[in-house]
Amino acid sequence: MIQEHQPQATTSAGWVHDIRKTGSVQFIILRTMEGLRQLTITDDCSKEVKAHLQGLTKESAIVATGRLQPAAKAPGGTELLVQTLSIVGPAEKILPFVPRDSATVPLPKRLDFRSLDLRSPDHQLMIRVQSAIVQGIHVHLAKEGFKHVFTPCLMGVPSESGSAVFPVIYFDKEVFLRQDPQLHRQLTIASGVDKIYEMGPAWRAEQSHTTKHLCEHRVCAVEVAFIKDEYDVMRVEEGIIRAAVEAAALIPGVIPPSLGKDPFPIFTLDEVRDIVAKKGHVYDPLEDLDKETERVLWEYVRDTLHRDFYMVTGFASRIKPFYVMEDAKDPRHARSFDVYCKGMELSSGGQREHRHDHLLKRITSAGMSHESLEWFTRHFRFGVPPHGGFAIGIERLTQMIVGAENIRDCVLFPRDPERVVP
Amino acid sequence: MIQEHQPQATTSAGWVHDIRKTGSVQFIILRTMEGLRQLTITDDCSKEVKAHLQGLTKESAIVATGRLQPAAKAPGGTELLVQTLSIVGPAEKILPFVPRDSATVPLPKRLDFRSLDLRSPDHQLMIRVQSAIVQGIHVHLAKEGFKHVFTPCLMGVPSESGSAVFPVIYFDKEVFLRQDPQLHRQLTIASGVDKIYEMGPAWRAEQSHTTKHLCEHRVCAVEVAFIKDEYDVMRVEEGIIRAAVEAAALIPGVIPPSLGKDPFPIFTLDEVRDIVAKKGHVYDPLEDLDKETERVLWEYVRDTLHRDFYMVTGFASRIKPFYVMEDAKDPRHARSFDVYCKGMELSSGGQREHRHDHLLKRITSAGMSHESLEWFTRHFRFGVPPHGGFAIGIERLTQMIVGAENIRDCVLFPRDPERVVP
Repeated sequence: MIQEHQPQATTSAGWVHDIRKTGSVQFIILRTMEGLRQLTITDDCSKEVKAHLQGLTKESAIVATGRLQPAAKAPGGTELLVQTLSIVGPAEKILPFVPRDSATVPLPKRLDFRSLDLRSPDHQLMIRVQSAIVQGIHVHLAKEGFKHVFTPCLMGVPSESGSAVFPVIYFDKEVFLRQDPQLHRQLTIASGVDKIYEMGPAWRAEQSHTTKHLCEHRVCAVEVAFIKDEYDVMRVEEGIIRAAVEAAALIPGVIPPSLGKDPFPIFTLDEVRDIVAKKGHVYDPLEDLDKETERVLWEYVRDTLHRDFYMVTGFASRIKPFYVMEDAKDPRHARSFDVYCKGMELSSGGQREHRHDHLLKRITSAGMSHESLEWFTRHFRFGVPPHGGFAIGIERLTQMIVGAENIRDCVLFPRDPERVVP
Repeated sequence: MIQEHQPQATTSAGWVHDIRKTGSVQFIILRTMEGLRQLTITDDCSKEVKAHLQGLTKESAIVATGRLQPAAKAPGGTELLVQTLSIVGPAEKILPFVPRDSATVPLPKRLDFRSLDLRSPDHQLMIRVQSAIVQGIHVHLAKEGFKHVFTPCLMGVPSESGSAVFPVIYFDKEVFLRQDPQLHRQLTIASGVDKIYEMGPAWRAEQSHTTKHLCEHRVCAVEVAFIKDEYDVMRVEEGIIRAAVEAAALIPGVIPPSLGKDPFPIFTLDEVRDIVAKKGHVYDPLEDLDKETERVLWEYVRDTLHRDFYMVTGFASRIKPFYVMEDAKDPRHARSFDVYCKGMELSSGGQREHRHDHLLKRITSAGMSHESLEWFTRHFRFGVPPHGGFAIGIERLTQMIVGAENIRDCVLFPRDPERVVP
């Protein structure tokens, strides 16, 4: 935002990544969101610049102006020959740690001083990638005619699955943080909006301490009406993943998973059973995918098909929530699918049950009361078309693209059972 | 998503807005997110179409194919001469109310059957406008080099202002839903990301029953570093509002407030005092704007300047939170501003205090303990540049653009002290 001070001068603003000296020439390596830049200060610089340079500490925020010139050894092939220098945000001389060493610092200390931690090159790249994913998805879905909507985070009734949710004290009531904006997305379809998406938070009150789970995460959740079957939904999801990965791939230094030119391979659970059987593993298609099946399937996709993204369809109805449509040909299976990348689940989706009578039957089968869900099911009496959708975890997708080991490194300020500060 | 059944046939999918008969010709007025379309069924249609037509009810979801032809009296100047018709989501014959009459239905009933209510023309337009605002802002800020970030909704420490927040039971701890992602946006700036924004939810646990307040709303929150002063921030906000309003204005039927060609007028509070004094109202610039001052100022802007959007700057430091920077020339005033549209506050913003020592002084002045905020202030020891930001209420902006009286009509599923369902 700071304007240029003189004609033909270039302004660089950022953080002092490093300070070096070679003979009488000083170099400041400046970190900006667009990458590193070399600032070069020769002995004939002004007294003011010399004075500023004297007290300059690493990680200070500075603004420099000068002339940009080619420099073969500098990052990006140019350097800024400094004419003016301002220290606009000085850093203390002793830092808890230097950002570029943060990978060697224990996680609790990294999180205590998260603003330093996030200045590391890996985190800076992650931030750029996640932003590119989010902006890329918005542009793609706008082009495809999808409307962005906001559905509630506060749920007046407990979650559909009965699993772990966070209670909220809402005046004199107890309400809950949504696990997934699923039911309200369906009500939005019922409201006459046939192609919708939402980018927003979701919560899981699980005492999990893995590198894959967060208590607060974000999803891109999509719902689309007037579908023929769940394959229409899968095509929409593939389009979004392609748009997100392609947007991230434009950032220098990013080597995302390979999208491949052909559509993502799709496996029914019967096919999965046959594939893993050849490797000596027994899998029952009426059970959820176990870890070993996931691993063997990924090896097959990688070694035989040379692909990174793939989908699995036809999960057992009994392990799926009541709102998922059964397959008419074999009601033991649901019109449900998962998207995988390199053996890791990225997303779940499927066709929803839009027929009021079938919906009530599914609720009975799930052992739930019609009364507790009447606030939801009543809307299906007044004209709801066939529809389906999915939710993609934004941090999970970021993790796959940047190759981070811990999902906590794909969120600015992670929330897990131990951490809610900063 | 449903594919065309025959060559040269057009497919229309949507909801039955109305059914009419003129002689032997039947008309179905179909509602889609792109507007109304006339389906025309002549006497020589197929038996299948006739059979479907027999039982067709208003608000059913249908798919029709046929030939598109000019029709002067039809919406959009064309009609679909129907060849095939499928009722994919039948509606019950007796509806709680007809969507287009929903304005006459009491609010509680409208919310109980929200999916019908949202099918009214006003709501359908609101949904399109809000989506255009959101997508327009993303495109604009991406173009301007802003990174989209996600900051936490769950706060481990109570809000900075001590005002009403919703407590969340977080395992064995009590945490809080954010009022505003303010402090974490500042920590993101401190993390070396100099132009950021976030589009997400915020909550206020206020027992207010006005037509302007929601307990759950959404903001577009922006923070930008390396600023000269708060006027840099105001220019960013004006750019966003212009992008949002221009995106909404592309939708037929939308008559948004006027942006004007020149920059939004800006008033200091001293100027506001002088303007309202001429109308006989006494206002003290060291107090917050009272309702009468807001009203008189708006009349002046409307009648004298012929503008809709305007800004007010220089609020009293003592009524502003600790993180707002004082004006060095007169510390009784803060580097803070509000954006107004037609007398209604849209947004608050300002320059933040980035100097660690000044920040601690502000905390002392605010009567808060340094210890309770050390989790936040520690980050300001390690190089934080001058920065500022603001938050725009998305529902409030929608309300101004569509001219809705009640903000509940600018959100799909509103949450207020009485309502958390559906």
